Amino acid sequence: MRLRHKPWATDFIAENPHFVVPNPEECQGNWSKDVFHNDNPIYIEVGTGKGSFVTGMGKQHPDVNFLGVELYPSVIISALQRLVDEPQDNVKLLNQNAEDVTKFFAENEVSRVYLNFSDPWPKKRHEKRRLTYKAFLDLYKQILIPNGEIHFKTDNQQLFEYSLESFSRYGMIVKNVSLDLHNSDIEGNVMTEYEEKFSNNGNRIYRCEAQFRE
Amino acid sequence: MRLRHKPWATDFIAENPHFVVPNPEECQGNWSKDVFHNDNPIYIEVGTGKGSFVTGMGKQHPDVNFLGVELYPSVIISALQRLVDEPQDNVKLLNQNAEDVTKFFAENEVSRVYLNFSDPWPKKRHEKRRLTYKAFLDLYKQILIPNGEIHFKTDNQQLFEYSLESFSRYGMIVKNVSLDLHNSDIEGNVMTEYEEKFSNNGNRIYRCEAQFRE
Ligand SMILES: C[S@@+](CC[C@H](N)C(=O)[O-])C[C@H]1O[C@@H](n2cnc3c(N)ncnc32)[C@H](O)[C@@H]1O
Ligand SMILES: C[S@@+](CC[C@H](N)C(=O)[O-])C[C@H]1O[C@@H](n2cnc3c(N)ncnc32)[C@H](O)[C@@H]1O
Repeated sequence: MRLRHKPWATDFIAENPHFVVPNPEECQGNWSKDVFHNDNPIYIEVGTGKGSFVTGMGKQHPDVNFLGVELYPSVIISALQRLVDEPQDNVKLLNQNAEDVTKFFAENEVSRVYLNFSDPWPKKRHEKRRLTYKAFLDLYKQILIPNGEIHFKTDNQQLFEYSLESFSRYGMIVKNVSLDLHNSDIEGNVMTEYEEKFSNNGNRIYRCEAQFRE
Repeated sequence: MRLRHKPWATDFIAENPHFVVPNPEECQGNWSKDVFHNDNPIYIEVGTGKGSFVTGMGKQHPDVNFLGVELYPSVIISALQRLVDEPQDNVKLLNQNAEDVTKFFAENEVSRVYLNFSDPWPKKRHEKRRLTYKAFLDLYKQILIPNGEIHFKTDNQQLFEYSLESFSRYGMIVKNVSLDLHNSDIEGNVMTEYEEKFSNNGNRIYRCEAQFRE
């Protein structure tokens, strides 16, 4: 993700509180009532990037509410621009750090977590930064419904190997593993920006679902 | 595996009880004392084929006892021929069905199970025949030491995906996953016949270790 300095990015975000929710702490426990105004399940994507996944999923699943969490203003504005161009009531963005998700969501408030092409942090000493490290699994578990699921895809072989190990060490059940998503029969796949780029390069895309046990 | 009719195969096996143990039921609980005459750990390979793995491992690990279990006489004779040509005290063969392993081994008698390039049985209705199906995991668990491990490799993508799911559903911990064994830094890999053939064809080799929880 290129991080060009975009001073107007924070202004653009601040001007669009309808799409980039400004004070998510205040919504904790009340997303359905106060923000989405319905009882549809809430799915979050952690590390949304430029938002093609979260907006594509929003169109494909009008009966689900999507929230894309992205740290960098310079990146999230691309997702915001999509929503400004083509508004979607069931898609919101959070310009926040995933480390803080338990401040934004109450227990059982989230029905699914998506992780797409998360930063691989290949060095062993950076293991704790990987979004499938056990400390992050702890956070997701706290906000997810019982038996909630993480849906994960990546082209990074080492991150996928690591994540399978991390999920199983945590006692999670791994389901619908695909070691070559684009040559599998899984339907309704919505591509992310990284997925588009890396699959065009001929990289294999790995995918799995990991379910928490009670 | 081609199953040519080899009437002399059963004779060849019967003539070599030192290598192909004829009545394994009678050894149950006493393999260390009566067969190997030492207290080294016992590793079994299920579906040994022509035996290059079990004999290669025997040479690489003289402090481990290896037992190769293979159903077909016409196949196991190739493994037997290796032992006749170059005897190894720490390698034995069983011309038996893996479904019967609990008759041959007592609880805690086996320290590790190897599954190499097991028949994939791709049809859903044949799931129960896959050697990583839960009924087989039950059998391995019964004979393995506490926290015993299965070491599994295959070139078959679907079987590997299935097996990861089966291990995790069983609550096992998956370790040292490699989605491209021959381009990884795992050391001391001993090739099987199928591994030699399929990797020469350019197929990726998948590998993992799965550990039982108590
Ligand atoms: C490699 S990009 C992938 C983007 C997008 N998911 C895709 O597949 O195209 C990873 C994204 O995760 C974001 N990210 C990394 N760590 C984060 C964190 N702790 N909280 C929120 N976003 C994070 C990065 O800023 C970056 O935009
Ligand atoms: C595909 S071959 C692989 C042989 C060898 N492991 C290799 O990697 O070259 C599978 C082998 O497993 C054996 N096998 C299959 N089911 C078995 C069972 N239930 N008990 C014992 N052997 C079995 C087959 O006869 C065959 O030799």
